[in-house]
Amino acid sequence: MRELQERILKDGAVLPDGIIKVGAFLNHRVDPVLMEHIAAEFGKRFDMDKVTLILTAESSGIAVAAFAARKFGKPFLFAKKAKSKNISGDVYRSEVFSHTYRKPVTLMVSREWIRPSDRVLILDDFLANGAAARGLLDLVRQSGAEPLGIGCVIEKGFQGGGDRLRAEGVRVESLAILESAEPGHIVFRSV
Amino acid sequence: MRELQERILKDGAVLPDGIIKVGAFLNHRVDPVLMEHIAAEFGKRFDMDKVTLILTAESSGIAVAAFAARKFGKPFLFAKKAKSKNISGDVYRSEVFSHTYRKPVTLMVSREWIRPSDRVLILDDFLANGAAARGLLDLVRQSGAEPLGIGCVIEKGFQGGGDRLRAEGVRVESLAILESAEPGHIVFRSV
Repeated sequence: MRELQERILKDGAVLPDGIIKVGAFLNHRVDPVLMEHIAAEFGKRFDMDKVTLILTAESSGIAVAAFAARKFGKPFLFAKKAKSKNISGDVYRSEVFSHTYRKPVTLMVSREWIRPSDRVLILDDFLANGAAARGLLDLVRQSGAEPLGIGCVIEKGFQGGGDRLRAEGVRVESLAILESAEPGHIVFRSV
Repeated sequence: MRELQERILKDGAVLPDGIIKVGAFLNHRVDPVLMEHIAAEFGKRFDMDKVTLILTAESSGIAVAAFAARKFGKPFLFAKKAKSKNISGDVYRSEVFSHTYRKPVTLMVSREWIRPSDRVLILDDFLANGAAARGLLDLVRQSGAEPLGIGCVIEKGFQGGGDRLRAEGVRVESLAILESAEPGHIVFRSV
């Protein structure tokens, strides 16, 4: 998605540890015009008529899911992250390693909101090593619902998480894939 | 907002400890039709032409802010919650007591995304004792920007946080105010 690539180059930054800083428009300050175009692009890549539920994870995935949910009239569900294992209630859980918190984090959704009859599109802001995406996929599979694929805004291609999922047959659509990212120098994968 | 009151009665629940469970449509599963109407209602209560920035806090505020941001073409900013005080970077911080985490939590926003010239509308899903709202207001005031008011979807009127803010002259608009909430019995404030 050219508009997104241009925005990353213009307003994004790469920190020395490979962190992509896009707080200008994606995961701190959120630009509603770009987000609307991002939602439209997901609509080109996935058959939204089939989707019955959009699933994401708190926090930064929520804005991405919200714009897509509104545009296509779908409910969305955001998995909660618990840093404790002491969680009650009737939930599906999946433990993933969080690089943000530098420890395992449990993703949780209430069982009542994913039905076996659901066809679920997973959306998120970032895909790096794929841990969060795998956790969300795991939640969908536990419920018996059908995962239609994973859409993410920015994929860190150099971390390989997206390609490992694709190699396993998971449909992964990323709107910008960074082949390499160093301070001052970003190379996008041509798609 | 009648539609919201009816939805709370139909799909919400009150847990014994006064927790209002609205994960069916607001803060876990999100209903895009209701959220669009909620955004429209905020547009009736605040002069959106004046707003230059919508501010909320992660996580559940993000969906509320996203729908309003899209509808009125405004950027939004979500304050990050840090459970640690070891935060670097050029940020405004405000420490609030979180009842969810049962400990102090620091709300943070990057200084570059709130300018003294901004006119800021604060939006959130819940207003209970007002701690989060006060934290967001504090961030706006630190920046020198003008706070236009606080809009929240559900106010727990019986906790008094909204009325204390109103008594201080803060514009607070809540789309449903619960005067009392016990399992099986909710009383709304008539407005």
